[in-house]
Parts: sequence; C-alpha cells; structure tokens
Amino acid sequence: MNIAGIPHRTIEVVPGTHSVRIIDQTVLPHQLVWQTLRTLNDAAEAICTMRVRGAPLIGATAAYGLALGLLEDASDAALKAGYDTLFATRPTAVNLRWALDRVRAVVAPLPLNQRADRAWAEAAAICDEDARTNHAIGQHGFELLRQLHAAKADTSAPLHVMTHCNAGWLAAVDWGMSLSPVYLAHDAGIPVHVWVSETRPRGQGASLTAWELREHGVPHTLIADNASGHLMQRGMVDLCIVGADRVTAQGDVANKIGTYMKALAARAHQVPFFFAMPVSTIDWTILDGIRDIPIEQRSAREVTHIPGIAADGTRQEVLITREGTAARNDGFDVTPASFVTSLITEHGVFQADATDLARLKAML
Amino acid sequence: MNIAGIPHRTIEVVPGTHSVRIIDQTVLPHQLVWQTLRTLNDAAEAICTMRVRGAPLIGATAAYGLALGLLEDASDAALKAGYDTLFATRPTAVNLRWALDRVRAVVAPLPLNQRADRAWAEAAAICDEDARTNHAIGQHGFELLRQLHAAKADTSAPLHVMTHCNAGWLAAVDWGMSLSPVYLAHDAGIPVHVWVSETRPRGQGASLTAWELREHGVPHTLIADNASGHLMQRGMVDLCIVGADRVTAQGDVANKIGTYMKALAARAHQVPFFFAMPVSTIDWTILDGIRDIPIEQRSAREVTHIPGIAADGTRQEVLITREGTAARNDGFDVTPASFVTSLITEHGVFQADATDLARLKAML
Repeated sequence: MNIAGIPHRTIEVVPGTHSVRIIDQTVLPHQLVWQTLRTLNDAAEAICTMRVRGAPLIGATAAYGLALGLLEDASDAALKAGYDTLFATRPTAVNLRWALDRVRAVVAPLPLNQRADRAWAEAAAICDEDARTNHAIGQHGFELLRQLHAAKADTSAPLHVMTHCNAGWLAAVDWGMSLSPVYLAHDAGIPVHVWVSETRPRGQGASLTAWELREHGVPHTLIADNASGHLMQRGMVDLCIVGADRVTAQGDVANKIGTYMKALAARAHQVPFFFAMPVSTIDWTILDGIRDIPIEQRSAREVTHIPGIAADGTRQEVLITREGTAARNDGFDVTPASFVTSLITEHGVFQADATDLARLKAML
Repeated sequence: MNIAGIPHRTIEVVPGTHSVRIIDQTVLPHQLVWQTLRTLNDAAEAICTMRVRGAPLIGATAAYGLALGLLEDASDAALKAGYDTLFATRPTAVNLRWALDRVRAVVAPLPLNQRADRAWAEAAAICDEDARTNHAIGQHGFELLRQLHAAKADTSAPLHVMTHCNAGWLAAVDWGMSLSPVYLAHDAGIPVHVWVSETRPRGQGASLTAWELREHGVPHTLIADNASGHLMQRGMVDLCIVGADRVTAQGDVANKIGTYMKALAARAHQVPFFFAMPVSTIDWTILDGIRDIPIEQRSAREVTHIPGIAADGTRQEVLITREGTAARNDGFDVTPASFVTSLITEHGVFQADATDLARLKAML
C-alpha cells in the first residue's frame, strides 16, 4: 500500500542487490525507518525483536533469511543451522515454520551452486502469493462493503468500519487481511471511515493501524477500546471487520483480546461482524474454540507499562499503576461462531459453521 | 479506609487547627501526598486542578472551602465572592453546587461572628453524612456479596468481583460507592478478589482503584479493559459492581465509558451486574437514558497521550499514536435498565425499573 503516495510492500528487495529491506515496526508510528537485511542473522534479529510482526510477514522474512544464509554458505550444514536459527526466533509462529519448510524443501535436492538462487526465487514467490491472497480477501470483502454502503439511507455518507488491533498490510506483505477490503473500497471511491480501536494492552490500533491508514489516505478516528459499544449503540458503526489468529472447523475464532467484546456489542445492535483471514488460518483439527484453543498468557508488563514519545521527543515507557501491582494479560479471546456474520477468505465468503467450512475445505 | 493500616478519610480536619488536608490524587498512585488546605483559595485550587475528584469529595471540599473563607471574612460580600469562586472551579458538578448551597443556607441568616463555626460544623456534617450514606450502600451490597459467595460451589475460593473506573473511597469521603460492599465483605472475612479494569482513556482503575485496594489489603489484579469479556466467558467473574454518574427514573444508567460493554458481556454469561450509588444520583426528571442523557465529549488528548512514571522516575506523558491522529473521546456510556441486575443504594437494593424506583422515591 502507499507510504506518502508511493506504493510499498512491508518487505522489498533492494533493487540490484541480494538484500531486502523491511520497515522497522518497533519505531512506528513515530518514525519510518527502513532496515536493510543483508545476512541470515539480520533477518533472525528482525523477527526476534519484532521489527517485523504478523504471521505472513514473519514467514516472508524468514524465507528471505534462509536465502541470505545460502548466499554465504549453501552447504547442508549451513542450511540446517540457518533453519534452526530462524525457527528459534518465534518458535510458536506457525507461518514461520511453514515458510522455512517450504524453502528448505525446494533447495535441499539441488546442487549447492543452485540453492541460493532457488531460495531467493521461492522467498519472492511466498511474498507474491501472500500479496495475491490478501488482494483476493480484499476483493471478496470489498463486495460486502459495497453492498453495505449501497444500502445506506444516505450513500454520500461514509461507510463506518470498526476494526481492532492490526491485521492490515503492516502485518502482511501487502494489502493486509481485515483492512484489504477497506483499501479496495477507498481506492474504488466508496467513502469509508475507520474507527480505529486502540487495542490495549499493546496498542497496535493506535500505533500501527492508524499509521497505515493515514499513509494510504483513508479517513479514520482513534477511540479507546471502551468506546466501541457506545458507538454501536448510537448507530455510528456500519460494520466491524477484524483479523483472526486461529479459526476452528466450526467457525469459532481466536483473535486479539477485546475482539469478543466488540462481537457482543455488534450482535446487540445488529452490526455485521466479519473476520478476514487466509484459509491457512483455519485449524481443521479442532471444533470448539473455547475448549480447544489455548490462550497465550503474556507479560503483565504490557498491562502496567505503556511505551510512547515523551514531551521532549524521546521514547519512554511509563508505568501507569503502582509499582508491584499484579496484572493478568490474556493475549487472545475466542468469539463463538454464532457471533460471526461471515468469514472472508481468499476463496470467498463463508458462513462460520461446520457445513459451509466443509464446503470451503472441499475447494482446497 | 486504611492507608498502610491506618484508617483515613480522603478529607480530614488537621487536629487542633482550622485547616483540612486532602490526598493529592493527581500524584496517585505513584506518591501519597497529603496537602493542607488553609484558605478558600487552597480549596478552590484543589478542586480546579482535580487534586480532589469524585462528586461527594468535591462537595465536601467546597463546603470546607467556604468555611475557611468565612474564618477570614464572614461578611455577606465575602460569602458571595467565596461561593462564586468555589462554584466556578467545576461548574457542571451537581454535588459542588448542592454543598455550597447547603452551607450558605445555614450561615446566611446568622450574625457574622457565628458564621464560620456554623459553616465548619456543616462541612463536617456533609462529610459524616457522605461516609454514612456510603457505609449504608456497603451494607446493602454486602448482603448480595455474602449470598453470592455462599452460593459458590467452593466457598473457600474467593468471590471474584469485577469493577470499572473508580467509585471507591477516593471518589468519596469514605467507603466509596461500588467498592464499599467489597471493603465490608473483605473486613468480614469473606475472601474477595477484585478484577480491576484499567479504564482507558483516563486509567482510573489502574491508578486509583488498584491503589486504594492495595492500601486496604484487598487482593486484586489489574487487567486491560479488553479482557473483561474473556474472563466472564471463562467463568472467572462472580459479579460486576460499578458506580453511576446518573440514573434515570426507569433505571437506565450513565457511567464511565466501557461500562456498557461489561454489561453486555455480563448478560451473555449470566454474571450479576450491579450499580452502586447514593439516591442523589437518580435524576427523576428523565426516563430514557439513551435519548435524554447528554454524553460529554472530552479531550482527544486523553486518548492519544498517557501519563505515568518513566524509567528514570520522572512523571511523563507519552504520545501513543502518530502526532496529529484524530481521536474521539466519549466520557460516558448508557447501560439500559434491562442489563442491570439491581441498583444498590443507601436505602436498599432496587430493581432498575420505573415501578421499583417509584417505590424508592416514595421512601425519600
């Protein structure tokens, strides 16, 4: 998507070189810093320190990391060591393993002198496929947004979209998941306005979603998470669209903590509630999300401390409660399928139930 | 309630003097600073800068402020000027005007040499009455908590209470509103544990509720507001109890933004949802809270900037989004009466409907 009017991806080959550059997301939204990755260790560091985040982008960065490693040393030993180094950066990230496995599988049978080029091409293919997947999610979601806008009493009024966290292009290679339909609608001239929910404790709405919407020129307003229900009660939200971390075979969805409360409010006020995600997010092995999806317990410090820019322009992290206050930090919550209007995937729009998801599975 | 084991009120006469002291709530939770108010202007400054906040405490501080003014000059002109100065500090605070009117009414008919003593006694009476009112709220609420605890499958397990914002003793003279039943239950030996919701944007849960619970020794855990629904879904909340800013004659309740989302989650998971407030909070002139209660629009800066203590121990306010991001900040939301399990007042526990509230009105 655009940064200051120029189209970009979150990970790009530096023209004429065997290196890639990424946006250092740890300094967003306060600074835009492109960091060049020249070695496997550069890529591992970028993943480990969360300069890149979001499942698709982590996978893409790891793929390029393995390719960068093979440029230096294409031996079996180096391939194994590189795989292990990259895998250790975020061992619970499913997409990371998937991307590493994919690159390794295509290069392992090749002679050493062909491995680096093949890995490089495979990493590029992973990026292109991710962009295509997300663009397809956007096209299917766009149709829903177009219909909802056309159904408004006053079609000159903006379509008010509420989102949560960041499942935008910063989490992917391009387009994003939940925001892809929004970008397509905006680019097609449909007036859209996004309610950006802060997303405590980590604040990805305030820091990332607001940033990328501004760069692409999409009108938006930041709100406290607490205001979501009030705005829906007052008829100020036409639809909600969020990403997903994991979807079960019957359509329960785990996503960033706070998603479920928005879904409750949306149900109470007949606001359509969409999840947008690639089909790879669906875990076909489980049915009941509340029973079967483990909820990651994250650091209490994310609740008690908040980073930002102080009045003197320096980056600071402030303690908002008393020193020593106990805090609990569930990273995700589960929205039961019955609260889901539909699931928007690259293969189309599906109902969140076992029957329709079985139809999707049969298409794969 | 207790501070470090010693009983205190939020506003206290300094023994042997004609001055009062207040807790400077602007530096909580990071420092406990008692500030002595010796003049009317000291009191006006404390209200104006929000060193004291919460309707009952603002009223009590203003009453003492008028008494301090009359100690210096008991003339009609000084009485009028003092009233005007104090009233101007927070002109929309209903309790402020009520307390000033009450003190003025009792001193105005008196000879000048009796006015200051009478005002001082009236201010003390206002404080004592507030503490009694809140203690009575606590006793009625205590009975509900006692029953809910007795009904638990395992009565050795704590009763998990969720609250929002701060309607504790820091907002009042003593006991508080929503937390008064919690303190009584704790003091009676019922094991209670409080989920303290941060309450963005101003963070009164993180800064004030966590502070006062700690000082009194009540076990508690801070959570992001976004986690409330998840904890209720997982059966980790036995009841919610919050304060109220305004209650209509049919039982709709305006309270801090985010209250409504908790009420939605509580309804979905059969968690009792109580509001605790003095009867003076009920506005008998209105019925429909969504239609008739204006929602204050507050500064966007509260959403975009967060104060706290930086790593070097200094107080800092950090910007959490990009400079210039538009934000909307609704101060309150309205929970419809149908979501209210009951209203806990100093006169007993009432259903949130026109019939039961008419019964309450008839008791007044």
